[in-house]
Amino acid sequence: MAKKPLTINDIAAQASVSNATVSRYLNGHYEKMSAATRARIQQVIDMTGFHLNRQAQSLKRRSSHLIGMVVADVENLFSSLLFKGTDQILAAAGYQIVLMNADNDLKVERQQLQRLLELQVDGIILQPVSATAANYAFLKQTQPVVDIVDRQLRGTNWPQVTTDNYRYSAQLTKTVARRGYNQLVVVTPPLGDNTARDDRYRAVTDLCEEKKFSRPLQTLTIQPDTTNAKLYQQLIAILKKRTGHTALYVLQGHLLLQVMTVLAENQIKIPEQIGLVAYDDWSLSQLMQPGITTIQQQPRAMGQRVATNVLRQLAGQSVEPLTMVESALHERDSLGTFAKK
Amino acid sequence: MAKKPLTINDIAAQASVSNATVSRYLNGHYEKMSAATRARIQQVIDMTGFHLNRQAQSLKRRSSHLIGMVVADVENLFSSLLFKGTDQILAAAGYQIVLMNADNDLKVERQQLQRLLELQVDGIILQPVSATAANYAFLKQTQPVVDIVDRQLRGTNWPQVTTDNYRYSAQLTKTVARRGYNQLVVVTPPLGDNTARDDRYRAVTDLCEEKKFSRPLQTLTIQPDTTNAKLYQQLIAILKKRTGHTALYVLQGHLLLQVMTVLAENQIKIPEQIGLVAYDDWSLSQLMQPGITTIQQQPRAMGQRVATNVLRQLAGQSVEPLTMVESALHERDSLGTFAKK
Repeated sequence: MAKKPLTINDIAAQASVSNATVSRYLNGHYEKMSAATRARIQQVIDMTGFHLNRQAQSLKRRSSHLIGMVVADVENLFSSLLFKGTDQILAAAGYQIVLMNADNDLKVERQQLQRLLELQVDGIILQPVSATAANYAFLKQTQPVVDIVDRQLRGTNWPQVTTDNYRYSAQLTKTVARRGYNQLVVVTPPLGDNTARDDRYRAVTDLCEEKKFSRPLQTLTIQPDTTNAKLYQQLIAILKKRTGHTALYVLQGHLLLQVMTVLAENQIKIPEQIGLVAYDDWSLSQLMQPGITTIQQQPRAMGQRVATNVLRQLAGQSVEPLTMVESALHERDSLGTFAKK
Repeated sequence: MAKKPLTINDIAAQASVSNATVSRYLNGHYEKMSAATRARIQQVIDMTGFHLNRQAQSLKRRSSHLIGMVVADVENLFSSLLFKGTDQILAAAGYQIVLMNADNDLKVERQQLQRLLELQVDGIILQPVSATAANYAFLKQTQPVVDIVDRQLRGTNWPQVTTDNYRYSAQLTKTVARRGYNQLVVVTPPLGDNTARDDRYRAVTDLCEEKKFSRPLQTLTIQPDTTNAKLYQQLIAILKKRTGHTALYVLQGHLLLQVMTVLAENQIKIPEQIGLVAYDDWSLSQLMQPGITTIQQQPRAMGQRVATNVLRQLAGQSVEPLTMVESALHERDSLGTFAKK
């Protein structure tokens, strides 16, 4: 397997030109070169299957042309779209992405960031598992450009690209209230160290304090390993006690799919028996029956934006400390309309 | 940004030990080292934020510890799960993945493979856009281990990890026939250079030749940019002409979501008005209402298997030329049951 790789010397010898000429050719400096010389060098390269060792090159230049990207959970379609947008911009500029999956685990994430430092990546794009900047202090003394995407880090100078979760969550909550619902039930993964989710929830509690709903807010916290049967028990316990019109607000895309499955399995009809809205990380809710009223994010646009920032920083230019990418409210068929009681 | 990186010499000087001692420490050879020396070196490393330059290291060893992975379409959830399985195995063995998205474009894929060669990756995992080995001949003269996953390449010696698309597609088709349907309509992206899809289709045509259905097979080929409105026109044209019980068989996961959306938008009820089965790349159909009878693949297991093969090859061991990962038929509620006419 490990045959000795060809060097520039080998190519130069076979093409009967100097090493310097081959080097100029490989770097695209054709000025002092005849067409015949170019053709001869290319022919030797084609015949031998020679590849420039860019890793050795980058070592000389102190640039790896690698960008590390650590996503919180690669199974979330949001991550795929984030990667796609980032890759579109970076690949066009000659950078490759080393992708890592933190699997929502701060320890795993830390190991991965350490590995990226060892790899001497030029930049790191991080969708952080934690919202606490102190957890990332070890990155501060290091060389690469660091950019934060999607979830915010509190108390950091690294540029951040995110969306205004508070504003859009408030917009969605007001939509439910306007339709005449008396009670809102928030269904959410555990809150605490995820700014995106916390901001969404804070918008709801602020509006409930303003008495947007006649009945008090209920919150159903769902652990990641909750089975459909368990989720149904928890849902039904809340729904049995409801009076008037109740709507569920699911704070996260993956949980939305689970909630819809449980409602379907138990023949609970949307919107006839229960209203449903959601914050859609997955961009899939428009494909579900019935269409769900959601806030839809633009992960691909976020990826493009953070990649553009990284390239600017690598070129020594300044970037905005905080960039807000727009999301959008999509009203579909998962809410009824009632007279206020 | 580019402050001069610390070297082993710097650490040795500050810890008052020899370069060789620092080097032994970094490589985990603690045999000839006192606990005090170890503690002193670690303290200097902690204080200075020193990181071993693994890229420079790997250059000496002729191993980058990078594995390139080129997926056909990163927006397909299948790819995310494939990545996740691969990453679980490789990361545990100290390898990082440079992920690339070919976006179903052979030219883009070729450029990406060239870049991976330039990066001197130790191995390449390829979900090929094309089924024709000649399109990948340029990889043959090169150093890295190459492994094919999901879609097969015809006429290659590279190890392949896939699933038996023909067998499972036949199983699904027979299930439809057993339920008493008279006619099958295959809905598929363009066929031709994707072995997974071609094998699925071939199973259907073989069974239709055996007269499993009383009415002839219809095939609806859907271009990637087809709008929902256009898809509806094409579907309705076929459905208007149907006699007896007709079932749709969607050959690919993303298209399944589009077909379900179109049926829902136009109040065409499953299974009352039309039967529906699918080959599910997306692992999402169990979350849709109604549940769709599908063949479900195991992309994560495929990723784990191909990663295990790569590691074995890098260790000089032999691997199976063709590994078939199991899929499974999931019967749900998208087919009726009729007496054969």
